Amino acid sequence: MQTTAQERAARIVGRLDALFEIGRAAGTNRPGLGAGEQRAHDLVTGWMRDAGLEVSVDRAGNLFGRAAGAEPELPEVWTGSHLDTPPDGGRFDGALGVVAGLDAAEAIAGSGGARHTVAVVAFRLEEGPRFGRGVFGSRAVVGRLDDDEADLVDADGITLGQAFAALGLGDALPDGPAAARLPGCFVEAHIEQGPSLAARGAALGVVTSIAGMAGIELVFTGRRGHAGTVPMQLRADALAAAAGFVRAAHDLACGLAGAVATIGRLDVSPGATNTIPGCVTAFADLRAPDAGALAALVDGAVAAARSAAEEAGCGVEVVPRWRYEPVAMHPGPMEALRRAVAAAGLEPVELPSGAGHDAAILAEAGIPTAMLFVRSDAGGVSHAPEEDTGADAVAAAVAVLEAALTELAA
Amino acid sequence: MQTTAQERAARIVGRLDALFEIGRAAGTNRPGLGAGEQRAHDLVTGWMRDAGLEVSVDRAGNLFGRAAGAEPELPEVWTGSHLDTPPDGGRFDGALGVVAGLDAAEAIAGSGGARHTVAVVAFRLEEGPRFGRGVFGSRAVVGRLDDDEADLVDADGITLGQAFAALGLGDALPDGPAAARLPGCFVEAHIEQGPSLAARGAALGVVTSIAGMAGIELVFTGRRGHAGTVPMQLRADALAAAAGFVRAAHDLACGLAGAVATIGRLDVSPGATNTIPGCVTAFADLRAPDAGALAALVDGAVAAARSAAEEAGCGVEVVPRWRYEPVAMHPGPMEALRRAVAAAGLEPVELPSGAGHDAAILAEAGIPTAMLFVRSDAGGVSHAPEEDTGADAVAAAVAVLEAALTELAA
Repeated sequence: MQTTAQERAARIVGRLDALFEIGRAAGTNRPGLGAGEQRAHDLVTGWMRDAGLEVSVDRAGNLFGRAAGAEPELPEVWTGSHLDTPPDGGRFDGALGVVAGLDAAEAIAGSGGARHTVAVVAFRLEEGPRFGRGVFGSRAVVGRLDDDEADLVDADGITLGQAFAALGLGDALPDGPAAARLPGCFVEAHIEQGPSLAARGAALGVVTSIAGMAGIELVFTGRRGHAGTVPMQLRADALAAAAGFVRAAHDLACGLAGAVATIGRLDVSPGATNTIPGCVTAFADLRAPDAGALAALVDGAVAAARSAAEEAGCGVEVVPRWRYEPVAMHPGPMEALRRAVAAAGLEPVELPSGAGHDAAILAEAGIPTAMLFVRSDAGGVSHAPEEDTGADAVAAAVAVLEAALTELAA
Repeated sequence: MQTTAQERAARIVGRLDALFEIGRAAGTNRPGLGAGEQRAHDLVTGWMRDAGLEVSVDRAGNLFGRAAGAEPELPEVWTGSHLDTPPDGGRFDGALGVVAGLDAAEAIAGSGGARHTVAVVAFRLEEGPRFGRGVFGSRAVVGRLDDDEADLVDADGITLGQAFAALGLGDALPDGPAAARLPGCFVEAHIEQGPSLAARGAALGVVTSIAGMAGIELVFTGRRGHAGTVPMQLRADALAAAAGFVRAAHDLACGLAGAVATIGRLDVSPGATNTIPGCVTAFADLRAPDAGALAALVDGAVAAARSAAEEAGCGVEVVPRWRYEPVAMHPGPMEALRRAVAAAGLEPVELPSGAGHDAAILAEAGIPTAMLFVRSDAGGVSHAPEEDTGADAVAAAVAVLEAALTELAA
């Protein structure tokens, strides 16, 4: 079926709208390994079948749709992203990479297929908020799940292992790589989630590297007491300690080029208006573009937490939750993206990724990996219902993705 | 029935233990106008009946047990406190004043009664945490409920009006004073909730004044965004603003003699580890011993909130939730307490109250009011399960309370 670029973008946006309605509140809510993510996988499974792709699910619950190649013994070419979202997320993060990848794979299948098999994949649980650790599906694919992975607990007290089992994926998490076979290369299309491409008037960008990042939980412990009867000098206020840490971590990131620090969760206990907080749990998400800056940021934040706690007469327990070193993209698939961008007559923009992605996991495992960033409109806002990308950029993305995959699978 | 001081204290402590078990988790949980508070009222109702007191409930749900006087037309003498608790509270705050008052009233009734009627009262919902505003029962007694009182909402979305109606107390809150008749004087026994009496080796203290206090809700509004893709310089992080406010409010209180500032509740939205907080709601409890210091503290905190918000590129909405000016205790009932303390051979200690109490509401309404503070052990910790008072202080308290009430009712 011959379609115009406009019709093609409209179909992709329509599918993103359909996914957005799953778990819709202010934004969409499809936490990984939950019912909403599963409904999204079911919907995409139907689209894969309609597209004539061969559908399979690996041992971690990752969904694959394959356009079989003429020489099936050759390494596969993968594209894709994820279908889960953070709380009240938008319609493009993750989903665009799956839906555009599906469209490109359908086109390749429709034109008789390539030499290599081309697969579109939807990785499970990429987002960290539910269990405090993300990129579950891609880590499972390369056999990098942690020993404590099944015991991670969400806000409702459900363990990751229980959530996994409840979806019928098995009583135990996969031991070793979850996919039967690792690919020869991987290309992930994803929205930029920042304002850089829009500021340059570019629809697309080729990613050079993915930032390093660490997640640290900090438990500040002071002494509960009555808000009216304990003099300021005798207090051990856990929130005073945590507030000092928040300020120090922000100052630290401001002083390191390209680094960012986000304390996105902070729970105050007992949380009563007239009780001095006895305990505060904070979660710090720390990122930096190179290994040296990441180490300086993480070590500095830990030191700042200890000194803020001491200044407030409190203690602090520091629990590292995850850490990924910065990773460079691979020249091979990057060059395929560059050529496709040039062939489409678009400006060749290259930029680093401040966000983590499944691509970083595959790249770290040695799979030649590249990423195509698609312009974020609405000021680059992401992880929010306002997240937006114009149809022109969506059309450019699927055309470039299809061309690059076609070259890589030739 | 003749009992020793020891037996009397043991009975009171036993009753406090029984109340403590209602809503027991880490500490006791009996939020005002909730099922736990009601069960406590039911239990005390039984004890009042056993004591031969005449039981009634006013239009606000406050519970009264009366030892009828020989001349019922004379103004009544009231004692008492409250039976609700903050989250995970202790066994003495509020409950001691009711149980010791009940014991004193029983003794007066048992000795044939006084000229004036003596009543022990359990006021409803003294603690602020559930609805962000407390002293509901005492304010209702003197006709000081606010216009928006019924619309206050707890964390579960239940309005105060709904909670009131669910207890069968009526579809509307009382209009005007809830009690049929205001008393001639009021004496509240209460634990100190601080370390001063213990530091002086005193079992009891006579309160001179109750601190002024204000509750302010602050809603900091920034811009949500992805934790990895928005440079520090382009952020409007609502938690950065709130953390700056917490630090500034604490510094401000440290600089004003006798003032305290507590931010006991702080809610971060959306609360995802990898999303920049778009909104933070903080609740500040500000107290000071005199009107000038209270004004300086409140005005300074509001200014600090605005400047912390501006510095972080955020906005802030300031919502005053309650304010009570400092109030002096009345020479009449204070003198009765002083004489009773002296008659018991105890050291005459006088001290201000940093905590708010139902007594402040009755005093502000012009009812001659005094308070008897009872030593807090365990370092003066309160609003926590560790809250403790030795049996010696409990025995002294009920003896002094009975003597003072007997004098006031004579």
